Amino acid sequence: MTLSYAIIGTGALGGYYGGRLAKSGNDVHFLLHSDYEYVKKNGLKINSVIGDFTINPINAYKSTSDMPKCDVVLVCMKTTQNHLLKEMLPHILHDKSVIILLQNGLCLEEELAIMFPNHTIMGAMAFICSSKIGKGEISHFDYGKINAGVFQHENDETIFQIKSDFDNADVPFDLAPDLALARWKKLVWNIPYNGLTVALNTTTDKIMKSEYARQLVVDMMNEVVDAANACNVKLERSFVDEMLTLTDNMTPYSPSMKLDFDNHRRMEIKAIYSNPIRLAKKHGFHMKKVEMLQQQLSFIEENTVF
Amino acid sequence: MTLSYAIIGTGALGGYYGGRLAKSGNDVHFLLHSDYEYVKKNGLKINSVIGDFTINPINAYKSTSDMPKCDVVLVCMKTTQNHLLKEMLPHILHDKSVIILLQNGLCLEEELAIMFPNHTIMGAMAFICSSKIGKGEISHFDYGKINAGVFQHENDETIFQIKSDFDNADVPFDLAPDLALARWKKLVWNIPYNGLTVALNTTTDKIMKSEYARQLVVDMMNEVVDAANACNVKLERSFVDEMLTLTDNMTPYSPSMKLDFDNHRRMEIKAIYSNPIRLAKKHGFHMKKVEMLQQQLSFIEENTVF
Repeated sequence: MTLSYAIIGTGALGGYYGGRLAKSGNDVHFLLHSDYEYVKKNGLKINSVIGDFTINPINAYKSTSDMPKCDVVLVCMKTTQNHLLKEMLPHILHDKSVIILLQNGLCLEEELAIMFPNHTIMGAMAFICSSKIGKGEISHFDYGKINAGVFQHENDETIFQIKSDFDNADVPFDLAPDLALARWKKLVWNIPYNGLTVALNTTTDKIMKSEYARQLVVDMMNEVVDAANACNVKLERSFVDEMLTLTDNMTPYSPSMKLDFDNHRRMEIKAIYSNPIRLAKKHGFHMKKVEMLQQQLSFIEENTVF
Repeated sequence: MTLSYAIIGTGALGGYYGGRLAKSGNDVHFLLHSDYEYVKKNGLKINSVIGDFTINPINAYKSTSDMPKCDVVLVCMKTTQNHLLKEMLPHILHDKSVIILLQNGLCLEEELAIMFPNHTIMGAMAFICSSKIGKGEISHFDYGKINAGVFQHENDETIFQIKSDFDNADVPFDLAPDLALARWKKLVWNIPYNGLTVALNTTTDKIMKSEYARQLVVDMMNEVVDAANACNVKLERSFVDEMLTLTDNMTPYSPSMKLDFDNHRRMEIKAIYSNPIRLAKKHGFHMKKVEMLQQQLSFIEENTVF
């Protein structure tokens, strides 16, 4: 079974993973925006800790209306653009296409399922340090694993082929039996660090060094764990300690929201904060400190010129 | 009955109120720090919306050990310096001296009472817009009322004379029957605006214009009202609406903590945040958003060079 791939958003994630799939011989089609002309001409350059490479020639497109229908649609855009998917995706979907949202946050698959109720939908999270450093140029600094789970319409044969394609492309691809649990676990890290590095204009290591900011991280992580459990997702409090130890051992790091803010891009406040807060409230739990961070980030975004 | 006054800290508050008392003929003694030489020579200049004046000659001192014992000691320093009072005040106190803490925050009188258990102690709050704009020069922009209450050892005769002296000096001086209530009411305003203008690097009017930041102010004010009630101080929720309306009608304003931060002075985190949080917790109420602001401010202060 041979699968064709559409990469929706050729940035730090889409550029890296799409590049890996293309390099190992898969049929990959890249949607680009401002870099289209440059990449069409010069190809896509990946500087990776496990070896540099360039995809040239490349199947590059400016609009999904120019792209062929693909078996797998990997959505790598920022969630702030997800409202565009309703118009963008029908051009490249056939009846059996699998849509994978490689994004952070909660309730993304629910929103997509309203647009595409009959397609297989998966959610996925990238554990990677990578960034777009210039026109058609992606740098991959560390890690790279993908953790994915099915949201609706299990389609085993295709999914196992996807896993096999990624594994063959040097991308470890884990299938999570419980997507909701995987999403909440990622939020335990994302919620405190993404927003606090923006609100406090700092990095993860400075937060961990401060008695006060570290305790605030612990408080927020505990709120997220309690919220997950209120939403019937079983998550142990001990996971908080795991995340703290992980962060203590990381090199100083600016999370994606900090990079977005510093580069004048809209922040993923809705997906990472507002949706989890709303869902937890619906189940009777109020994440007060998380909500305060959401309020502060919304104020900061309102008062920023993009 | 004629009273002598010691002004401990000749800044935006001490300079203005001490200046008013001196101008109307009272025996006033000013403690100065960096401005001592200048003021000794040039006097203390007050630019006031109700008329400018200069106190020259002036009773200026560099240390309390050079000052005479006074009937009234008006403490106008920042609360971050209150640990120094134990050494400073004995030089100027006689048995019947009244100590007035003209400061913001909670538990200040309790801490002073441990140092001076036998003296009359009052707490007072200034409702004024004033600031020190240069060496020996204070500007008074608006308002000016003092609200004071007795913490320990009622001393009616002296207190009524103090009120009369201030009233005669064009300073409205109200005696609050319940100091704890007056302190908590001031906190309803001080807690959200002082810290948020620092954490969000903004002014009161921008906060009020933002749907998100305004709601955060409301959330924090409600926490303070609930905390007061938990501490057996009866305060109505409707007071929150009064404070919002007051702020909506104010000119754009930087609270004292924002001015302190911008001028590289230590912030009054303990008096305005840590003490109220601790007291409320002792009475079973957890101000979570207020605590988060305290944690953020502590982080910001740790990462600021003074």
